[in-house]
Formats: sequence, C-alpha cells, structure tokens
Amino acid sequence: MNAWHKGEAADELAFPKPKRRLRLGIAGGGQGAFIGPVHANGARLSGRWEVVAGALSSRPEIARQSGRDWFLAEDRIYTDYRVMAAAEAARADGIDAVAITTPNASHHPIARAFMEHGIDVISDKPLTVTLEEALDLVRLQRETGLVFGVTYSFSGHAMVRQARQMIAQGAIGAVRQVHVEYFQEWAMDVADAWRLDSAKGGPTFTTGDIGTHAHHLACFVTGLEMTALRADFLVTGSPKPKEDTAFMHVRFAGDVAGTLMVSQAAAGTQCGLRLRVFGETGGLEWDQENPEYLRFNQVGMPAQIISRGLGGGMGVEASRFVRMPRGHPEALSDAWANLYTEFAIAIEARRDGRTLPEALLRYPTVLDGAKGMKFIEAAAHSAAHGGSWTDCLLEYSAIR
Amino acid sequence: MNAWHKGEAADELAFPKPKRRLRLGIAGGGQGAFIGPVHANGARLSGRWEVVAGALSSRPEIARQSGRDWFLAEDRIYTDYRVMAAAEAARADGIDAVAITTPNASHHPIARAFMEHGIDVISDKPLTVTLEEALDLVRLQRETGLVFGVTYSFSGHAMVRQARQMIAQGAIGAVRQVHVEYFQEWAMDVADAWRLDSAKGGPTFTTGDIGTHAHHLACFVTGLEMTALRADFLVTGSPKPKEDTAFMHVRFAGDVAGTLMVSQAAAGTQCGLRLRVFGETGGLEWDQENPEYLRFNQVGMPAQIISRGLGGGMGVEASRFVRMPRGHPEALSDAWANLYTEFAIAIEARRDGRTLPEALLRYPTVLDGAKGMKFIEAAAHSAAHGGSWTDCLLEYSAIR
Amino acid sequence: MNAWHKGEAADELAFPKPKRRLRLGIAGGGQGAFIGPVHANGARLSGRWEVVAGALSSRPEIARQSGRDWFLAEDRIYTDYRVMAAAEAARADGIDAVAITTPNASHHPIARAFMEHGIDVISDKPLTVTLEEALDLVRLQRETGLVFGVTYSFSGHAMVRQARQMIAQGAIGAVRQVHVEYFQEWAMDVADAWRLDSAKGGPTFTTGDIGTHAHHLACFVTGLEMTALRADFLVTGSPKPKEDTAFMHVRFAGDVAGTLMVSQAAAGTQCGLRLRVFGETGGLEWDQENPEYLRFNQVGMPAQIISRGLGGGMGVEASRFVRMPRGHPEALSDAWANLYTEFAIAIEARRDGRTLPEALLRYPTVLDGAKGMKFIEAAAHSAAHGGSWTDCLLEYSAIR
Amino acid sequence: MNAWHKGEAADELAFPKPKRRLRLGIAGGGQGAFIGPVHANGARLSGRWEVVAGALSSRPEIARQSGRDWFLAEDRIYTDYRVMAAAEAARADGIDAVAITTPNASHHPIARAFMEHGIDVISDKPLTVTLEEALDLVRLQRETGLVFGVTYSFSGHAMVRQARQMIAQGAIGAVRQVHVEYFQEWAMDVADAWRLDSAKGGPTFTTGDIGTHAHHLACFVTGLEMTALRADFLVTGSPKPKEDTAFMHVRFAGDVAGTLMVSQAAAGTQCGLRLRVFGETGGLEWDQENPEYLRFNQVGMPAQIISRGLGGGMGVEASRFVRMPRGHPEALSDAWANLYTEFAIAIEARRDGRTLPEALLRYPTVLDGAKGMKFIEAAAHSAAHGGSWTDCLLEYSAIR
Repeated sequence: MNAWHKGEAADELAFPKPKRRLRLGIAGGGQGAFIGPVHANGARLSGRWEVVAGALSSRPEIARQSGRDWFLAEDRIYTDYRVMAAAEAARADGIDAVAITTPNASHHPIARAFMEHGIDVISDKPLTVTLEEALDLVRLQRETGLVFGVTYSFSGHAMVRQARQMIAQGAIGAVRQVHVEYFQEWAMDVADAWRLDSAKGGPTFTTGDIGTHAHHLACFVTGLEMTALRADFLVTGSPKPKEDTAFMHVRFAGDVAGTLMVSQAAAGTQCGLRLRVFGETGGLEWDQENPEYLRFNQVGMPAQIISRGLGGGMGVEASRFVRMPRGHPEALSDAWANLYTEFAIAIEARRDGRTLPEALLRYPTVLDGAKGMKFIEAAAHSAAHGGSWTDCLLEYSAIR
Repeated sequence: MNAWHKGEAADELAFPKPKRRLRLGIAGGGQGAFIGPVHANGARLSGRWEVVAGALSSRPEIARQSGRDWFLAEDRIYTDYRVMAAAEAARADGIDAVAITTPNASHHPIARAFMEHGIDVISDKPLTVTLEEALDLVRLQRETGLVFGVTYSFSGHAMVRQARQMIAQGAIGAVRQVHVEYFQEWAMDVADAWRLDSAKGGPTFTTGDIGTHAHHLACFVTGLEMTALRADFLVTGSPKPKEDTAFMHVRFAGDVAGTLMVSQAAAGTQCGLRLRVFGETGGLEWDQENPEYLRFNQVGMPAQIISRGLGGGMGVEASRFVRMPRGHPEALSDAWANLYTEFAIAIEARRDGRTLPEALLRYPTVLDGAKGMKFIEAAAHSAAHGGSWTDCLLEYSAIR
Repeated sequence: MNAWHKGEAADELAFPKPKRRLRLGIAGGGQGAFIGPVHANGARLSGRWEVVAGALSSRPEIARQSGRDWFLAEDRIYTDYRVMAAAEAARADGIDAVAITTPNASHHPIARAFMEHGIDVISDKPLTVTLEEALDLVRLQRETGLVFGVTYSFSGHAMVRQARQMIAQGAIGAVRQVHVEYFQEWAMDVADAWRLDSAKGGPTFTTGDIGTHAHHLACFVTGLEMTALRADFLVTGSPKPKEDTAFMHVRFAGDVAGTLMVSQAAAGTQCGLRLRVFGETGGLEWDQENPEYLRFNQVGMPAQIISRGLGGGMGVEASRFVRMPRGHPEALSDAWANLYTEFAIAIEARRDGRTLPEALLRYPTVLDGAKGMKFIEAAAHSAAHGGSWTDCLLEYSAIR
Repeated sequence: MNAWHKGEAADELAFPKPKRRLRLGIAGGGQGAFIGPVHANGARLSGRWEVVAGALSSRPEIARQSGRDWFLAEDRIYTDYRVMAAAEAARADGIDAVAITTPNASHHPIARAFMEHGIDVISDKPLTVTLEEALDLVRLQRETGLVFGVTYSFSGHAMVRQARQMIAQGAIGAVRQVHVEYFQEWAMDVADAWRLDSAKGGPTFTTGDIGTHAHHLACFVTGLEMTALRADFLVTGSPKPKEDTAFMHVRFAGDVAGTLMVSQAAAGTQCGLRLRVFGETGGLEWDQENPEYLRFNQVGMPAQIISRGLGGGMGVEASRFVRMPRGHPEALSDAWANLYTEFAIAIEARRDGRTLPEALLRYPTVLDGAKGMKFIEAAAHSAAHGGSWTDCLLEYSAIR
C-alpha cells in the first residue's frame, strides 16, 4: 500500500473552510457565449462564490439582457470593463475577483485594468496573444501580489491531481515518455472564426486554443517543464489561413521524450484530450472524456483502474476535492468547481494576510499562462522553420 | 434519421428562462450529512436557485454552525422545521420551496408542515415510511395544487431522458424485457444504521434505499408501470435485521417480463445502477457510473453509442438540458441540476398561474414517490410469503 | 503478491508433452453444421489432434461430400455411427476418441456405441435429453474407465481458469453472491427449430441450450454445486411452444445466493454470457465477449484488470494454457483448443496406464454433463409449479 | 444501408473450397522459438494445411527433438534449409510452401533457396535486412511467378479488412489524417538480443520489428502509400546501441498527413498497436488488443461499434473469413488462419493454373515486404539526419 493509497489528508493539507461567499464579476459571457457560463457554473458548484457583476457585452442592450439572465443587479451590469473595475473597486461589497472570458486579445488589457484596481484575476487561456503581454502580467502580478489564476480547466479534475501526485511520489519511476493528444472536429469546416484573426486570437489557431491545454496538462501531471519542440503545422480540414492541426515531437526537462498532437479537424472526435505517461516501472493513462478513471499499468502486474472517490487508491491531493463518493460520477463542472475552490482559498488567504502551505494549492497561475504563450510562439517558430527544434522553456531571466 | 436524431426543440418544448433566482430552504443537511449538500449543489449548478434558509439540525449549536457553513443569514437558521415553515411563509422574501433531506420517517410530517403553509416541496426518496403516509401526501398535493418533486436523481440524467424518449418513439419496438440492477458494497459490514431501524427507515433496508431508485428508473425509461413482483430478501453481508440484498422477478403493464436485483453487500461495487431494456427490434443499456453513454443495439446493425451533447443522435427532451457540449462530460451534479431546473420551472409557472405543456417537464412527483412506497410494501409482503407473486401497481382508487 | 501472481507451474502441474498426434472421429458436422467445425478447429489448434474419420451425415451423398470437405479418407467416411464405432475400433490406426456434435437426442446412443467399443468420448452439451440417460452414461463411464469429456466450451478460457483458481485460493474471501446471465437474440423470431422438438432437444429450449452453459460456468468458477432453484419460464420473442427466456433465483452449497438469467430473445445481444461473483472481500467479473480480461474488484482498492498472458497476475492453472503472450489476444477457438488439450492428455494417460495429478486437468466430465441434466429437469419442474423452490443437486446415490 | 452492410459475398468474391490439405514446411521454429508455432497454429486453424517438414534448427539434436514435438516424420526433419529445399522439391509429396520464421538475416537466402526449387514462400517480416535483398526477392518472384506471402499478421484480422473496405467505399470520405502507434514494453530492460545485432536484425531495432507492422497496417487500411517521413530515434529504456523508440511525422499519397509512433520500452503496455484514420466525414479506430471491434465515428451521429460476425454491418471482404458468429470472439490465431487461408487459395490456384479475381485475395506480398524495407531505410536515414523529411515511397523503377 503506497502513500497515495491512504487518502487521508494531514491537517495542513486539508482545505480551509470559507468564511464567506466570495463575489465574482465576469468580463465577457454575453448571450450566446460559451465559456462565460462554464466559469459561472464552476464558481456556483464550488459553493464558495456568487456572481454579482459583469461586463458581459460592450453593447448596452445585450449587456442588460445578459445581465438579467445572470440575475445581476441593474447597477452592476457594465458595458465597459474599465468602468466596472473602478466601480467595483470603490464598492464596499465590490467583487473579490474578475473572471475574464473574452476573446484572447482583450485578456491582457482587462487583466491589467482589474489588477490596477487591486482586484484578483481569473483568466481563461491562452493567457494573451503574445508572450510579451503575458510577461507583462507576470511582472504586474509579482509587483502587486494579487492572485492570478488561469483556467486550464482539465487540471481541476481530481484524477489529474491523482496522476500528478502518483508521479511525484514515484509510482511509475522516472518518467521516460510523455504523449499527449487533443482531437476535436468542430473546425473541420470552419473558414471564419475570431480565432483565425491574428489580432483577436494570436499567431496560431488550434495550437493556441487546445495545444495550450495539452501542453499544460503534460507539464502539470509530470511535474516537468517542456524544454524544446519541433512542430509541423497543417490544415487538414477546410482551407483556412492558420493551422487546424499540429504534430510535435517534444522534450521535457531531463531529456524526457514525448509527442504532442492536436487537431480541430479530426472528424468523428469530440473533446479527445488524452495523456499517457510511461516511466521506468509503469505508466498512467487519462482521458478527458472519461475523467473519473486513471489507468495505472505496472510492469508484470494487472492493470489498475483507479476511480475517483475516497478510498480506492486515491491520494490526499485528489481526495480533498471529493464532492461525490466513488461510483457517483463527477465531471467537467466539478473540475471547474475545483479550480474555483482553489482560487477562493488563495484569495481569502491573501485578503486575510495568511500564508498557506506551499503544497496546498496547485491551480494554474499567470506564470503557467506565460509558459503557454512561450509554447505557442515556439511552435509557430518551429513550424515556420521546417519543423526545426526550438526551445520552449520560459527562461526566468525573461520575466525579471 | 429518426425523430430522436433531430435534437431541435420545437418552441413549445424549450425550457422557459427564469425570471428570478428562486429561494430554497433545506430541511436536514447538518454537518456530516451526505445528501443535503448534494441537493444544494444541484440547485446551485442549475443557476436557478439560491439556498437561503435551513432547519439543518434540531441541535442549536450544530444548526448554527451548519448554517454558517451554508452562508445562511442568522435569522434563517432554524432548529425546528415547523418554526421554519411558519416563519418563511410569513416573510416577503420567504423560500419558494423546501428540500427535505432528512431520514425517511420525518419526510411526511415535514412535507405536510410546509405544504400547509403553501410552500412547494422537494423531497428525497423513499417518500415516506408507509404507503398510507405517501397517499396522504398525494391527496394533500391534489388539494393544494402545490408542486411536489421527488429526487429520484438518476432520472435527471440527459441520457436517461434520451432513453425514455427513444423507447416512447419506438426505437426498439414494443418492450419485451426489462432488467435493472443496483449493486453497492457499503453495507457489507454494516450492523447499525438508521436505515435498519424500522421507525426511522421503514419496513425494508436496501429495497427502500436503492430498490426504489431501480424501480423508478425502470418504469420511467420504459413508460410502463410495474404491476407485480416476487421477491426474495437476503442478508449476504454481515448479519443484520433486514435484507441487504433482494432479487425479484417482475411484471410490467402489458405482461412485460423483467428482473430487479439490488444489493448493498456486493463487495467491490460502488454505485452500480444499470438498466437494460430489450424490445422487438433492439435494446438499450445505461449505466449510472458512465452516465454520458447510452448503448443502442439494433438487430442486425452495429451497436450505437449515443453520447450526450447536441447532435450525435440526441433528441429534444435530452437536448434541452445540455450544459456542456458533446465530449465535455456531465455527471451526477448535472443530473441533480436538471431536476432542480424542472422544479424551478414548475414552481415559477404555478406561482404565475401559467400552465405548461404537459410534455415539458418529467420530474418525479409525489405520485411517483407513492408508487415507490407501494413497491416497497409489495416486495416486503412477497418476501415474507415465500416469494409469492404480489401486486405492486398503485390503484388510483386508493388515492381518491 | 499472492500465489496466483506467480505464474510458475510447479513441475507436477505442467502439462505433459504429447507423444503422438491423436486421431479424432466426428459424429455430426455435415455440411451446414455449426458446432462440428468448431470442435475440429479446437482440436486442430491444440496441435494434439488430427481429424481422420466421421459419420457426418446419415445421407450418403452429404456424408461423402462433407467428408471430402474435411479431407477424410474415403473409407473413413461413414453414414452410420454404429458402423463407424465398430470399424474404427477394429483398425490399428483407429480413432482415439469420437466427438459427438449431433442434436441432443442422439448423444446418448452414440456415446454408448463408442464406449462399448472402448473408444473415449467427447460430447457436446447438453449431455442427453433426460437425466436418466445421463446417469446411464455416468455409470457406463465408471464401469469402463474411459475418458468422457463434455464441451462446456467456455470453461476452456484461460481467464475462466484464472477466476476459478483465484476463488479457490481465497482472493475474494468466501463467496456470497453469484450472478450469471446469458443473453442471445437469435431465437427472437424462431418458431421452428429442432431444439423446439422435445424428442430431439429435450424438455426445454433455452434452458437446455445455454442455461446449461450458465449453470456450469457458475459452478465451475466458484467451485460450488448449485443446490436449489426457482425458475420462471417465459416466451418473450415470437410465440413458441417452449421457453425462450428463463429467470431463476438459485442457491449454491453453503447457502450462497444467486441469480441465473437466460434468453435467446434479447434483441440486440449476441453471445452475452457474463459471470459476476461477490465474496467477502471483493468480486470477480468475466464476460465471454471480451474473454481476455478478468475484472477483480477488492474492497477499498483500485479495480484490477487481469489480462491473459504470462505475468500480469495470472496463476499456474491458466498460465499453462498460454498460446500467445499478454496483449496478443486469444479467443473462443483457443478455449476449445484448451479443452482438446486436456482431453488429449487424459486420453494419452489412460492409454498408457498413467495416473495424472488430480489437480492437473479440469475439463468437464460426464458427471458435469449429468449435473446439467439435473439442472434442466429441476428448472422445468419449478417453472411448471409456479416457480417453487426445487432441488437441483445431483445426489450421488442416484448414480450408484 | 451502405454496401458494406450487406455481408453477402457475390459468387466471384467467395473463397473457393480447397481440394486437398496443403503441406507446409517450416524454416526456424526450434524449441523455445516464438513465432514458428504461431505460423503453425494459424496454418492448422485454417483447416487447409498440415505441417510435414522442417529445418527447425541447424543443431541436429535440437532439430530432431523439435521435429518430434511437431510430429514430423524422421526423414523430414532437416538441419539445413538447402537440403530441405532440394529434398522436398524432389518428393512426390513434397511441401507446397515453406514458412520462414528465422531471424531476419536468413530470410533472403532461405527464400531464394526454396524459390529456386520452385517452392512457394511465406516469410515473416521484416522481409530482409536490406532493401537491396528485398528487391532481389521481388525480382525473383516476378521471374518465377511463385506465390510469396509476408506475414504482416494483423492484416489478417476480419475487422482490419472491414476497415479497409469501408475506407475504399468512402465510409469516411477522403482520408485526411492517419495515426498509427505500436507500444510494447518487453525491451525496456533488454541490452542484448539478436535484433540489436545489425548483421542478424538489420539497421534498426524497434522500427524494423514493429514499425514495419505499423507502416503496413496504415497503408493497408487506407489504401495509400506512405511517401515521406521524418523520424526521431530514441532510447527510452535501458541503454542499447539502437533505437527502442521512434516518433515519426509521415505523409501518404495525396499529401495526407499522419504520425507513426513505436516503442518497445513503454512500460505497462503489451501489444498496443492502434490505428486511427480521420476522413472528411468521419473516422475509424482499431486496436489490436481488442480486435473484434471497429469504432466508426461519423460527424453528427452516434458512434458505431462494428463487431465481427455476419450481419451487424460487416462487408463481404471481412465476412468471408468468419469462423465464429458475432459475439463468439475470434482473435490473433484466427488472423493468422485468415492469412494462411489466402496463401492456400493463391497456391492452389497457381498450381492449377487458375487466375483468381484480383479483388479476391489481399494477403501481403513480397512487394509489401520490400516497401517495409524502404520504410526502415528511410526512417534510419532521416533519424541520422536530424529528422529531415525523407522519401519512403518504393519507386517501381527500382524493382525493374
């Protein structure tokens, strides 16, 4: 029985109870938006947040109507995020954090605006459209000490945490190979989308949209930084000005080999994010579409299917998220709720001036977001240079 | 392409938007409680409810501490549900509904108390401890016209709705066999639990606890009433005064044959509720532990795996619940949120005096709860009489 | 690491090498026959047999043509099994065993004919059409000492042996529940078949055809005799004079509870034989359609998927059958080959006058065949008496 | 209902019955050998072959003992394949074909020796150790007109044939992406093996051993030639002089993109050969470890699980191999038997001077073997040149 079988949180690793429900503002998320409601659902399900304000659209009528759908008070429905930042900062009951759910290009100015008013930030990914912008946010976060979470949402799954802890504790020995893939079909016939416009979406299409998820998941679970990559960019769906498919060979710290494949023109797939890690003594597999199960293969042993829930081989880091017992499935809303739980704990502690144990929270930060931008730029550079090996490690000197 | 492939809600079958967030009170759910928070999570995730009051415990200190955990205002933390019913009914901002999450024996008096104050009721299952009590609630609901929902939670899964619609539309032809099973392990070594005390839990143990889920799911999906059963009650775990395992042969309307198996002493299982329906031309299978998939087997054809999300063969009744697109998994919290969505729609309509299309809502009602009590009593009677065939159809005359 | 993890055959438990290829005769298996070629494929794949003679049909032209398809010498193509038995017994190179693959009613006379000529018998199931006939064969086998194997083919799967050994060695503690089911669809619309004719098929239809497989598998894997049953017989497919569906509650030695369900009118199923055993500390699941995997659930542990092949948790009894390594799948032909391997070892030993270690061979015998007939008759009796509890244990006194 | 749903073989596409059992000789396969018995099992299970001669070892004692294990006549146990070729060619009952199951380096001289004596050849893969040798065999086969089959064994699976036919008939539209991977673990700790010796195994280790399987499967199923690749060779297991892992980006005819990943140091895997093809309108997935199922994903439709067996969506090319009905699983021995069936049909036709319909047989030939050698050499060249894009299409001019 290894350590990750215990499932008992030492006191210092248990999550503190909330003292009050935090107030969340939303930027983006007007009628028809996809990801805004996903943030809100996660926040609500966590039981630690209420959504109280929003700059849901720059168009007044849409903002007003959307605000009503979200049950916002009329005076907290904004059409300009700058106005919202100032107004909320001035209220006694102002928002504790803003969730940025707009297209990529506005992440940077919105984040800056709220941080400048002392408001903690939760941003969707990719963090920005350039690495430079991302580094600017990293520096600002360091100066201000604000909480800055980035919603690499899949890292909120309990079984992803379980995989991370198992690898950290040596369950598969030293990591030898890492394979991550993310297949979708929705852009098969897409010729026009904001993500195809570099001004709004950044230099890449699929690499920025889901490649960053794959990059983060692989690094998060293995605990290894990705150091280099070679990328081929392809259009395998309808003609479009940017890649809808990218294949990469990658290296992680310690010269660990791997591959990363992403496509949004893989007909017949939905949201096929899958990670496989091979180590010296075994391997782990996790599939986003069936997130409750972690397959643990040890050399010379039967395969184990570790399933979420107390007992059953789950360790402390995953166990403290458990909302439903084993066999009562959780899923993507729960993963979002888990991230929003961590954001809330971090924000409460910052506001109270408390320091939390370092190992308590593992939510993705602005630095993780910047690493994602470095990955995007490196991939685009490699693809433009015949798939040549390109460094993708974010040098810490760059952010000083 | 059959009708259930269309996935487009005719206008009259779309869910109306909420006008305001409804206010929910909780009875039960003090510290350490399991099912109270599950109700609350479903309510929150639906985006249509906020939890504002509670009689979380009869012990003042526990009630107060639990109420704070729930972020309730001090004056809405009660220790007596009768006081709560009266007080909330008197408030302008009183609760719109009470969720009853206490042990079985108090469901009846609590439901009565709130209904007598004109407050809509959401009760956990089994509805009561006797059929007589259940019929009393059915009659009271008819007299008052109040909304009375029962949380047979698994009927909230989108793919359960999909199965229901497909069978109703003839996807597998006339139903010929229905097999439902529910295996858990938690009572393997249980010798003491409130469910074993007849005064608190009713005449049966496992039959009332999870047999009622199995009974409801089978009837709900097939659209058939269960008419008769023969039951063998067994103790297969540690010695205990009531059955922890029951095997039944059952009949549904139209002389459709089936089996129902439940055990809470099936070592190595978690929450293994599984339904299989065989018809003239094919069959359907659904498994609670992997709720996003519905297996559709047609004679002479490849098996189909219908997965939740717009498109992909999902019909209108399931589609209108979709929170996350195909491939982005939903799970049990979402099923609860779906039921709480229906409860909210029904309650808003009742309060507004609007009549909804009959096919719009399919949440389980107090009548379904009473049918569950009839099932429990019939099973207990059969088991006590050597497994003799026993009627379990609730005669409508009984409830006039 | 338990004993079943070792996968090393002690010398006395290794299978002896064959000295020569044995000669097999076939009764039945003319053109269009299903099960005759299945026997032959298993025999060939075992590498220990060649098919050299056959009474493939009583019609000369069909027998001759079928014999050529089987590459039989002209003088060993018979139209009468009695002639075959006598002629083969008289040849120096006569057959070592006969495989009886005819309809049920002729199993008894054919088996008798060959045994009377001193020829070992391999019979398909069900063994006969009455228990009395079966007991006659048991007695004759005891008198003659001949080898008499019965092809309950699923017991030849390596993972079925693995399950048997694990239970025998206590992997799940004492057995508490046994559930076996066998669902097929082929008789959904069948109104006419020799199995429906009592003279040819015996007293039951589905119970005899696949119920006996389910009965044998459950007893074989658990090591427990079935002692009593209550059966409901149903017609759920097209009208027919016998049951195409049967549901049973059963008891095994030691008052272990269980269920047995069979149907050949379960639309959308193929060959759905599935066994689940729940013990004190865990459970095992095996599914004939995916025969390489054995799911091993232990309380409080991750599920294990034991897969066939050396290492990986397989014990000695299964390991000695391994034809292909782990990950290189075996299937039904391999299961038949495994039984034919055991038959060959038994027959060689008998002819050489060698005694084999008792635990070496576990192929089903004439006695297992007789137990199957007792099961059929008990089920038919129970169904005819309102599903009353009926003994189905074969009393050893009955066969003296 | 598309054409591949029909499952009825037009007469010209049905397999002809054999006239006699063909005689197979084996080169290689002495005691302890792995692949020799696999060939023999496939040949036996096909029902069309008997193994009658062998050069099982060059060491007389091992040859003799191995020959007895194979039940060979003493005078047909050889220690030199040249002697065997001459002697068998001289016998009236000489072998119809030789199966070459030796290490790679001897495939070429053995094949030559038998072809020079007019004996048809069945060779294991990779075909030779150099492309030049392979082309020599291609030319010799063209000169002699002999049958020359290569055992890319996975192409014998019925569901692989089904996938090939579906793609050829447009089930997924034009192919857009092809991903093939093959993960094993056995060489994790291997530092010494004949495959690591270039003289015996050729220029690569894993690429030649299992990369060729992956290459053939991808080309066979899609009907597309691989035209170019870029390869990174890695050692991810214990130190060894050649790659145990290779990652490739590949191109197929028509500029179709893909990836190919192989490793024999992927701890926790067994025989993980998996193919995914994405087309314009859907995708297909096949996994060697569960070979009876083909997953067919169509845009906007439920996924289909096509399972082997008549009906159920299987087309004629797969159907004519069916040994067991749907739900009665076949596996790897059956795939080998399928190839040996095709070899037998081709050899009988050649000996009879009959011409078969071109679409009847699809077994891999010496030309496929040569393409595999081109692939190996291209991969080694690319890996040695920094993963540069390298042509891997076998130019037909090269083989004139």
